[in-house]
Formats: sequence, structure tokens, C-alpha cells
Amino acid sequence: MHSITELQAIVKRTFEEETFSFEPTGLYDPISYTLGAGGKRIRPLMVLLGCDLFNGELSQARPALLATELFHNFTLLHDDIMDQAPLRRGRETVFKKWNTSIAILSGDTMFAMACEHLSTLPQEVLPEALALFTQTARRVCEGQQYDVDFETRQNVSIREYLEMIRMKTAVLLGCSLKLGALIARAPAAEAEKAWAFGENIGMAFQLQDDLLDIFGNEKKFGKETGGDIIAGKKTFLLLKAYELASPEEKAELDSCFSHASIPANEKIARVRRVYDALNIRQITQSEIGIHYSRALELCTSIRADETGKNLLKTFADEMLKRDF
Amino acid sequence: MHSITELQAIVKRTFEEETFSFEPTGLYDPISYTLGAGGKRIRPLMVLLGCDLFNGELSQARPALLATELFHNFTLLHDDIMDQAPLRRGRETVFKKWNTSIAILSGDTMFAMACEHLSTLPQEVLPEALALFTQTARRVCEGQQYDVDFETRQNVSIREYLEMIRMKTAVLLGCSLKLGALIARAPAAEAEKAWAFGENIGMAFQLQDDLLDIFGNEKKFGKETGGDIIAGKKTFLLLKAYELASPEEKAELDSCFSHASIPANEKIARVRRVYDALNIRQITQSEIGIHYSRALELCTSIRADETGKNLLKTFADEMLKRDF
Repeated sequence: MHSITELQAIVKRTFEEETFSFEPTGLYDPISYTLGAGGKRIRPLMVLLGCDLFNGELSQARPALLATELFHNFTLLHDDIMDQAPLRRGRETVFKKWNTSIAILSGDTMFAMACEHLSTLPQEVLPEALALFTQTARRVCEGQQYDVDFETRQNVSIREYLEMIRMKTAVLLGCSLKLGALIARAPAAEAEKAWAFGENIGMAFQLQDDLLDIFGNEKKFGKETGGDIIAGKKTFLLLKAYELASPEEKAELDSCFSHASIPANEKIARVRRVYDALNIRQITQSEIGIHYSRALELCTSIRADETGKNLLKTFADEMLKRDF
Repeated sequence: MHSITELQAIVKRTFEEETFSFEPTGLYDPISYTLGAGGKRIRPLMVLLGCDLFNGELSQARPALLATELFHNFTLLHDDIMDQAPLRRGRETVFKKWNTSIAILSGDTMFAMACEHLSTLPQEVLPEALALFTQTARRVCEGQQYDVDFETRQNVSIREYLEMIRMKTAVLLGCSLKLGALIARAPAAEAEKAWAFGENIGMAFQLQDDLLDIFGNEKKFGKETGGDIIAGKKTFLLLKAYELASPEEKAELDSCFSHASIPANEKIARVRRVYDALNIRQITQSEIGIHYSRALELCTSIRADETGKNLLKTFADEMLKRDF
């Protein structure tokens, strides 16, 4: 059993040792640039956590470390085109720094590299690992499609929103843990619990992201609060507020989001006032709590060494403390 | 052993039986639309030819039929964005009919589906098949990057051009045949020859495409001649002409491509006059002949039933007769 710090060191070394520089440089420079920007490498860490939990051979997990991180970054490259996002991890996005064609093509190449790495997994693990990985990839694309659809839809329900973040974010975290479990030849039922643990942590993490955007500590969270309100994003908080709002409160929210001329600070303050009146902060925290508790229960029920299970719990806590 | 007509019927049935309609429809409608447009399904046919040649179980090839065609169409969706191409197979391209985001995301999903299908290949075949498929995918992306780069580069050599079309077109044909051979558990050396046969047919096919654009029978080829000249595309013919041209002929070509005001017909006629003076048609035919002969030699050297090898030769002839 390894500590989280040890597992993080393995992830770090794996990416330092791996080269992403090939010809043509026009295609691979954006890939080195993207993977060189760091990021938290949560998914590879989860692969190792899943593998270590069931006493797997960590060296066998190497292809899955690379695959999950390459895949995640590929989705960011393409998402940034769709969102026309200028910045990512404090640096220019690939489509901005280069162009859309290159961001499409470098992304495609990262996806191909991800699956290429998986082909070197132990043969008896590969079919299930590849099926899991590619089905997850489809879910992530579907989630992104819903996210894009929701931007222009008026009647998004909480259920639909939760399903969207499940697909867009949570399933890949579940997949990462389960890949590790598969590589460790964990029993099917235990691998499934690992998956569900990761999925619930992913849900909690994404909901917390929504919460921190408005109620977060700017210094600790690393970005200004209220960005989602300014962007008019349909977050859990906003959808919940609409669900619970009185006609007057609905009108107030509508007014905030339909008048582009309202100064940002005023808009944030007015929306926040509605949130406060409706206890949106507590409701969101309770929704996060549901997923967090479910994750912990799942963790308890996994048949594995206590040390490994405690490590998973520590990981979950640190994810949600945002210390990563 | 099956006839080409029988193999084509299997391909046709496979795609008729497979559904591509899932939720969200915004993501999957463009996939059904793309795969429903037909196309020649050359790659799945080549998978079956490769499998049948080595007496493989054709039903085991099903995942590879779907994977090669899904992958090929995924690249078309993304290429059409990069080329801003309005039409494909006589219909609006996906990014035109829907939008760029959807064309990116539907393409990504098709790539994921391609690899998902591969995960159901027989377990002992999967590692090598997946490695081949994903390495080929990377080559195709690299080829597309070179193609995009060449548009704005002045000094593209014939060698570079041939390498580009090899990556962009030929390797996937080689891959398709070899996938079939792998599924039939062909000996490694024979599978390699099948790959090289496919690659050479691909080179011949692409060079013929360049040739037909200017010297083709408009009725038979299905499009107006001279399109590449009007688009200023660096084809084998144009690069060869620049290589062989006298200073006067170079100046004539430069003049044709630098004056946008020259009427299309006149431009085509003037470039064609230079091609004729330099025997470009014969030189291109001879280059096609080199790849065609190499393919036939490779075919002869494959250790397999004569009937199967004759089928491959028939296939090659029909590819290059453009009767497909």
C-alpha cells in the first residue's frame, strides 16, 4: 500500500518520462503544451488508487494513467473550441494560441494516443478496460452535447442537470478508479463499487464547483466569484432557485438574466440575495453531502484492506477540500 | 471463399442492422446522417477481403467492419470543418447542416464508437488489432496536419507529398486489410504483406485521384475536371510539373496561380498545356503503375489460396477502374 504522496510521485514521474514530441511538430506541440500545463492529474491518481486498493501491480497501470489524462485533456481542447474559452489553467487555450483546425486535430491525436496506450495493458484485462474506457468516452461526449444544448434551452430540470454533470464529469472519475481495479484483477462486484465511489465523488466535486463559484473564497478557489452568474450558466444553484422561487423571486431572477446592462457586481448581489432567501447554499451543500455519504458508504462496503479504504477516504476529503 | 459481391452484401447488411440512433439525438443524428449517406464502404470490404484470404471466420470481423468505417467517417467530419467544405457525397456536410461544435462532437463520438466495437474482437486478436488501429489513426491525423501545412508552404517536395497521401489515405487501407488478416490469425509475415498491398493500392488510388481531376472523364468520374487547379491544390501533378519545368514554364505556372482574375477555363487550359509539354500525365501514370505493380507482386508473394489472391487482384483492378 502506498501513500497518496507516493502515488502522486508515480504519476508525476510517468508524465515526465513520457515524450509527446513527434513529427509534425505543428500537431504535437499543442499536445506537449497542454500536458505540460500540469493540471491536477486526478484521473491517473485515481487509476493508481484503484489498483493499489486491490493490491495490483502499479507498473501495469501505466497505460491507463496515460490514457485517462490524455483523454481528459483531449476533451478540454475540444470543449474550449465549443465554449470559445480563451484561457485554461492560466494560459491561452490551444485554439486561441494556434487555431481551431489544430485544436481539433491535436485533440483527435490525443484520443488516438490514449487508446494506443491501452493496447499495451495486460491482454486479459484489455477487453473490459477498453469497453469501459470507450463507453465512458461516449458518455462524456453525450454529457458535453447536453451541456451545449442546455445553454439555449429554457426548461432544464434539476434531474437533467445532474445527469449532464454525471456524464460530463463523474463517469470519467468512476472509470479511472475502476480501470485501476480491473488492472488489479479485483472481483467484478468490488470494481463496480470502486466505480460508483468515483462517480459519487465526481458528482460532489462538480456540485461543489457550482457552489464555490458564488460562495467560494476567492483566494483559495483561485478565481473571482460570480463567474457563472455573469455567464448566465444554468448551474445547480440557479436551477434549484428557479424551482423554489416565488413568482416575485422568479421575476427578479429573470430580470437579472435578461438585462445585459446591469453591472456585474449588482447582478451577482441580486442573484445572491435570491439564493440566500431560498437557502440555496444549504440545499446545495446537502446535495453534495448525499453524494459524499454515498461514496463513503460504498467505500466501507468494498472488500479490501482497511488501509487502502482509508486512503480512498482521505482522497475524497482532499478532493472536496480542494487541496489538490 | 466468397465473391466480392458476397462480401459487399455482408458489409451492407452489417450497416443496415447496426443502429446509430441514441440519445441525445443532437449528437447521434449527424452520425446516422453521415453513415446513411452510403459511401463505398471500401475499408470494411477490405477487412473482409483480408479475413477471407486467410480463411478467417467472417463473423468475427464484424467489429472491425464497423470500426474502420466509423473511423473513416469521423475523419471526414473533422476534415470538412478544417477545409470548410460545404458538400460531401452530394449532401451538405455536418458542420454546414448543423454547426462546428456538433461536427466536432459527433466526430469524437464516432471515434469512441469505433474503438468500442474493437473491444469485442476475440481477446487474443485485440491487443495487436487495437495497436494497429490506433497507430493508423495517429498516422491519419499526422497526414491531415501535413496536408493543412502544405496549403501555406511553398516548397513542398514530391517525397513529402507522397508521404502525406501515404499517411492520410494509404495506411488506413493497409490497416483494414491487415485487421482482416489478424482476425483470421494469418502468420505475421503474411499479414504484413496484406498491409503493404493495401497501402500500395491506396497510393495508386490517391495518385489516380489527382490525375482524374484534370484528365478524367467528367461523366465517369462524377465531377468537373480542373477542380484542383482552381483550388490551387498542390497535387502530384503540379509538384512534378514545378520540378521539371523550365524557367519559362515555372513563370507560366506562377502566373496562373497568382492571378485570381484569370477565368477558370483559361487557367485550366494554360496549366494543362504545361502539363502536356512536360508529359505529366504519363509520369503520373507511371508512378501509379509503380504502386500497382508493387501491390500485385506483394499479392503474388502472399502464402494463401490462389482463389483469394485472385480476388484481391480483382479488387485492386476495380478500385483503379473506379467502378466501385
